Amino acid sequence: MSEGFPDAEYAARVARAQGALEKIGAGALFLTTEADIRYFTGFLTRFWESPSRPWYLVVPLSGKPIAVIPSIGEALMASTWIDDIRTWSAPRPEDDGVSLLIDTLQEIGGPVAVPMGYETHVRMPLADFERVRAGADIMPDQGVMAGLRAIKSPAEIARIGQTCALAGRAFDRMGEIARPGVALSDVFRGFQRLLLEEGADWVPYLAGGMGPLGYRDVISPAPDTPLQTGDVIMLDTGAIRAGYFCDFDRNFAIERSDKRVTDAHHKLIEATAAGFEAARPGAAARDLWRVMSDIVGHGDGAGRMGHGLGMQLTEGLSLTPDDETPLEAGMVITLEPYIATADGQLMVHEENIAITDDGATALTRFSAPEIQILS
Amino acid sequence: MSEGFPDAEYAARVARAQGALEKIGAGALFLTTEADIRYFTGFLTRFWESPSRPWYLVVPLSGKPIAVIPSIGEALMASTWIDDIRTWSAPRPEDDGVSLLIDTLQEIGGPVAVPMGYETHVRMPLADFERVRAGADIMPDQGVMAGLRAIKSPAEIARIGQTCALAGRAFDRMGEIARPGVALSDVFRGFQRLLLEEGADWVPYLAGGMGPLGYRDVISPAPDTPLQTGDVIMLDTGAIRAGYFCDFDRNFAIERSDKRVTDAHHKLIEATAAGFEAARPGAAARDLWRVMSDIVGHGDGAGRMGHGLGMQLTEGLSLTPDDETPLEAGMVITLEPYIATADGQLMVHEENIAITDDGATALTRFSAPEIQILS
Repeated sequence: MSEGFPDAEYAARVARAQGALEKIGAGALFLTTEADIRYFTGFLTRFWESPSRPWYLVVPLSGKPIAVIPSIGEALMASTWIDDIRTWSAPRPEDDGVSLLIDTLQEIGGPVAVPMGYETHVRMPLADFERVRAGADIMPDQGVMAGLRAIKSPAEIARIGQTCALAGRAFDRMGEIARPGVALSDVFRGFQRLLLEEGADWVPYLAGGMGPLGYRDVISPAPDTPLQTGDVIMLDTGAIRAGYFCDFDRNFAIERSDKRVTDAHHKLIEATAAGFEAARPGAAARDLWRVMSDIVGHGDGAGRMGHGLGMQLTEGLSLTPDDETPLEAGMVITLEPYIATADGQLMVHEENIAITDDGATALTRFSAPEIQILS
Repeated sequence: MSEGFPDAEYAARVARAQGALEKIGAGALFLTTEADIRYFTGFLTRFWESPSRPWYLVVPLSGKPIAVIPSIGEALMASTWIDDIRTWSAPRPEDDGVSLLIDTLQEIGGPVAVPMGYETHVRMPLADFERVRAGADIMPDQGVMAGLRAIKSPAEIARIGQTCALAGRAFDRMGEIARPGVALSDVFRGFQRLLLEEGADWVPYLAGGMGPLGYRDVISPAPDTPLQTGDVIMLDTGAIRAGYFCDFDRNFAIERSDKRVTDAHHKLIEATAAGFEAARPGAAARDLWRVMSDIVGHGDGAGRMGHGLGMQLTEGLSLTPDDETPLEAGMVITLEPYIATADGQLMVHEENIAITDDGATALTRFSAPEIQILS
């Protein structure tokens, strides 16, 4: 059981990678992370949650990628389009696939490009990587991997849209789980249940906040504090279906809404609409930040208000004052303006869109300007 | 809102770390991963799901750890016992906290120990780590971090036990979600719902398999194939509550069980009991592997049959033929024997235990020898 795209989808990705490798003078691409390896193979498993075993993929200049993986993953990898699967019995700390990997890299020939820039990490012990570096000619991938993943295929965009749709259905059911007296921690549990009922495979991310005038931050775990009449509650979810994320939020007022909250929500929706209007090929990431920022009233020092989205909750460009990345058709991004409502309190709103040839298309059902009241 | 241990728990961890650092001649410990940073701070957030921002913690030879983190995490970190919090506005790819980090390391003094051995990785861009290496004297931590985390405090063991208990209650309700005709993918969704209803904060890991005589592997995602009368179904869950995992499985037969499955289950329970009996301080990890292996009938080449458990789904020692790690009081491990049932098919069983001064104590309610029949 692979991720389920046709082989041609993976073959096209590999072909694009090989063209890019040739341009930077690399002989191979070496990958260690879940998303990067799945991108070329369709190898989808939650087993990455265990840190005990490294997984390696080598993309040569021609031909299919070669998997160098623990034997526990052989059956699953063999169900993908990959043919050349080299395994060892992991964990074997004294040589956890390293010599097998070095042999493979030497057979294919270098230099070996490795993602080592912004937003990457090398998912293997550093001491083992040093051994690889001693046995192979390592070079930076110069953003090749990030560049490939930034432009989604129609099949990928359809997947993200499907995940957005199921999360939208879960948000439609918020009234079932959020009312005065329910602890925020139980709202979090309840919302994850709704996401699963609506078809999520699993829920890697859920954040949120609540309070009469907004929330203090958007990354804290849910306290057991009960919801009260007049609170605004925000949930921000990164659910997964078929290996692709959504990442958006919704705000709700419990029975009634303070005028400052109502007005802030209007501004957030207005900013999101302006960001959507500005989103088209050729516009830069920071242009979208600017049009949203002008509405919600930030100075130049404010944080990001959106980012790329796909196989990971956040990936690629950032809507910040400094990110000059030009938008391209096939990018999927979030629009995520935030606004201060009171001292130390804020509200945030988020939608997901795909850039098209002449503009953008909504992947989430955009919120109305009026904050939803749960009663 | 931190993870919620008393400050004294974190202070004791830091004191142990400082003693170990002194022994290896290090002047500081540098950490980049979720579990390592949480271990000393209580900083608990699902925001790590986003790869866009690195997070750093520096443990000096005396005094509290120093957090060098994106400003989006400042409010949450300030709610923990940590006082010295240095922030930057991330993401800022051209200098994503690196110069702030180097200044901090130089102020504290080195050499700076970094976990770089088995089961570790450095969660930051490699190019940024190279800049740090140029500005600080980096050395391996020689297993200090892994050694600290391997021995759990009573409070940690109580957390793991609580998570085991809630997952046990979810398994008790399997009859609500698994019956002939239900797709395995929907059983997976349903079981995650049960875990949440029973008190899981979230469900980072769920794997499983099904078939008339067992399953092909234990890491594949769930197919839409419906359960049939006579199938055995296994679910293996790593749920989280208050930051600590359980990791165990249960097998169920749908309406009736093939004699080979029934017999295999008996053997697995027998092997688990033998592993539990052998588990005491001074026994080596491989001793437990051996007593279980003798019952389920593996040769010396077989894979691991258990591992450490705690803030991560798997961590620390492995029950393999080669792991000589001696068990110590305070370790929490899984016993996970597996057995072949037919060509290419296997069954696996898993329980969680804590090593005590004179033996071991069960954290899961151990399964009976008879496989449970759902009817």
